[in-house]
Amino acid sequence: MTRQLHLNLFVYPGGHHEAAWRHPGSDPSRVLDIRFYQDLARRAEAAAFDAVFFADGPSLADNVRHASRFRLEPFTWLSAIAAATERIGLIATASTTYTEPYNLARLFASLDHLSGGRAGWNIVTTGAPQAAQNFGLDEHPVHAERYGRAREFTDVVTRLWDSWEDGALVADQESGVFADTDKIHDIDHDGKHFRVRGPLNTPRTPQGRPVYVQAGSSEDGRDFAATYAEAVFTAHQTLASGQEFYADIKKRAAALGRDPRQVLVLPGISPFIGSTEAEAQALSDELNALTQPAYSLQLLRRLLGVDLDEAALDGPVPLDLIDGSGERGYGSRFQLIVDLVERERPTVRQLLHRLAGARGHRVIAGTPVQVADQLQEWFEQGAADGFNVMPPHLPGGFDTFADEVVPILRERGLFRAAYEGATLREHYGLPRPRSTYSAPVTQEETA
Amino acid sequence: MTRQLHLNLFVYPGGHHEAAWRHPGSDPSRVLDIRFYQDLARRAEAAAFDAVFFADGPSLADNVRHASRFRLEPFTWLSAIAAATERIGLIATASTTYTEPYNLARLFASLDHLSGGRAGWNIVTTGAPQAAQNFGLDEHPVHAERYGRAREFTDVVTRLWDSWEDGALVADQESGVFADTDKIHDIDHDGKHFRVRGPLNTPRTPQGRPVYVQAGSSEDGRDFAATYAEAVFTAHQTLASGQEFYADIKKRAAALGRDPRQVLVLPGISPFIGSTEAEAQALSDELNALTQPAYSLQLLRRLLGVDLDEAALDGPVPLDLIDGSGERGYGSRFQLIVDLVERERPTVRQLLHRLAGARGHRVIAGTPVQVADQLQEWFEQGAADGFNVMPPHLPGGFDTFADEVVPILRERGLFRAAYEGATLREHYGLPRPRSTYSAPVTQEETA
Repeated sequence: MTRQLHLNLFVYPGGHHEAAWRHPGSDPSRVLDIRFYQDLARRAEAAAFDAVFFADGPSLADNVRHASRFRLEPFTWLSAIAAATERIGLIATASTTYTEPYNLARLFASLDHLSGGRAGWNIVTTGAPQAAQNFGLDEHPVHAERYGRAREFTDVVTRLWDSWEDGALVADQESGVFADTDKIHDIDHDGKHFRVRGPLNTPRTPQGRPVYVQAGSSEDGRDFAATYAEAVFTAHQTLASGQEFYADIKKRAAALGRDPRQVLVLPGISPFIGSTEAEAQALSDELNALTQPAYSLQLLRRLLGVDLDEAALDGPVPLDLIDGSGERGYGSRFQLIVDLVERERPTVRQLLHRLAGARGHRVIAGTPVQVADQLQEWFEQGAADGFNVMPPHLPGGFDTFADEVVPILRERGLFRAAYEGATLREHYGLPRPRSTYSAPVTQEETA
Repeated sequence: MTRQLHLNLFVYPGGHHEAAWRHPGSDPSRVLDIRFYQDLARRAEAAAFDAVFFADGPSLADNVRHASRFRLEPFTWLSAIAAATERIGLIATASTTYTEPYNLARLFASLDHLSGGRAGWNIVTTGAPQAAQNFGLDEHPVHAERYGRAREFTDVVTRLWDSWEDGALVADQESGVFADTDKIHDIDHDGKHFRVRGPLNTPRTPQGRPVYVQAGSSEDGRDFAATYAEAVFTAHQTLASGQEFYADIKKRAAALGRDPRQVLVLPGISPFIGSTEAEAQALSDELNALTQPAYSLQLLRRLLGVDLDEAALDGPVPLDLIDGSGERGYGSRFQLIVDLVERERPTVRQLLHRLAGARGHRVIAGTPVQVADQLQEWFEQGAADGFNVMPPHLPGGFDTFADEVVPILRERGLFRAAYEGATLREHYGLPRPRSTYSAPVTQEETA
């Protein structure tokens, strides 16, 4: 079996382009209709995608006036999607800064149970400072502090998932033993941020543990990914940047004694597809024409800290005004945009259009063959194990990718024609972990 | 339209009787199979039940060795059930002591969105002291303190649900206005337990607010119910006790200016049904014969604080050993059992069998007509607006109730033959609340 690429559908209400909801192919009256998302997941499953993925954050974006930027709560949404699908993985973003490990461990364990082993956890520390004010904090915890908590949080959750060994659920009607309590363990965690006794109140899940996903590419984020992540979502505009990141993550993981093949690197890509290059570009132009400067400038303010008005749209991006001294300056997305500006020297309007597609993720406009070529290049040139596909508009943008690009990837032997496994771990080629409380595997078991 | 009774199916893994999972009609291999619960909910929906209801608590019971006492996480489970049903209400228990209001408000809002307005919140303060140790607390907060937090918590969650007025979601493709931000409000809550800025990050839900349910019958619990609850779950062994509670809740609600008809009182009942009284009793005996004293005595220890061993099973319950001086003594369930012992003077084994069926809720054994008579009596004699039906074993115990008792209730004009409304509020006959941030209704609107 040759190496295969992995594809997730990154779901965003209305589509990833900031003006997607205004596109004639969108139906904004359905942004809260679960059947819309169930149908989308079924389409992704029909294309044998590895997973659907939901971003999240516990606050309302400050620019919801002009764009579909409310939040779909991932656990409830993905549980309802699980009920409408059979095989596709279900990746929920959840914050280690604004939840309790016991509650989060339960939600993921339950999603894994009810989906038959399809859950993944995109571990985030939450970048939005306004979240703090929804949780009684005056100030958003700084980056390093959030990652310290994230590490301890992830360790606690892991031990809770392990607290019921495989086989602890006996359910023997005859003997009357429901659970073998010798295989259920208090975790007795007593750390800097958390004290948690355990055990979890639900048996070990089909996957043992949901898949660990991580999406920060800062220095702290890379360290965290190398330690915990089995899949890494990341944003890169150039092959060179993708290659640097890919090599670095694999090297850091190997240095920690991990098998680098078990840390999948999955950059985001937003594909604009047309039967000709001009048609693809026309779709991009059509969506960009629907953007609203009031929204776009606010996004720029959030990403770069630079405060511009509409009068500045057709001038150059004023690099000297960009303030990278604060928290924002530590973010990988900040650096990506600064690099882009330095490389391409766009006008403000051009930069806004670049960011409108996917908030800094890579946008590809081209024919199905051109898009497939790009994916293959990154996959074979050491920049990606697969991709987080971010269709500019939904459902049409996904359908075009599934109908036009996926068959080409299959012809080239790069992507599965059908699922071979049942769980997300199996789709991703990841092992099912043993409980840390289980006895070591004996030679006979491994023989 | 004559007054109709309301029926919920209280779902418990394995059934409510502590030995139900050992009954030949049970399939304990399916206790974690979502399809089992989806199927059960579809059966309840076919019977036009108002809702399915899940209890919850964030810790593992200490007696899981002999009984099916792990927990199904309600939000994920009910979201998957929502996807498999169309009309039935979905009531999730959630703790105000061990969650954050912003996170909980989101989970319920999302469940209400994806179910088309079928969510209800059973508000609990969590009685299990071992929960504290899963959340970094040395001691479980005392009863009064938990209720203080519960009140503030409920106020915050209410305002978060109201923070998007109806009509705030505009989604007008032409004008480019996605949300009318004049109708989205910070809540700026600054209280004793919480500081929450808001707004919620999702639009107002189909029901405006999920239905408020409450299940504590202590003095603090009754005060809380009178203030907030639209449905009250409660446990009573005698008609007189049910009547006292019913009258008291309605009176307290009226004293606070509420319409007492909008506070439904729904006692639990666990029905053992047979074609003859003897057959019903035989089913009860059959299940009681499957109980295990090691489990039952532990339950007694938890409920009453009395520590007995198997040698004491056939002697009288030693009332003088029961310790009601601590936290436990404030609970309504504690008093219910002490009353039962004083009234009936059972042996320890007899008491254990009484509690085995439904942990202190009322058990009825009889023919379908006898069960229907009992429900009608309580409904017409001022003790109930309906019932939380707790089948001793599942799914068979529910099927018998739906097939044999429900038709009798219908013949008597006491229960709907089909749903008339679409939301849980409509099933319960409750109004849809306006957002506290909306302008008062004008005369024209009410005309």
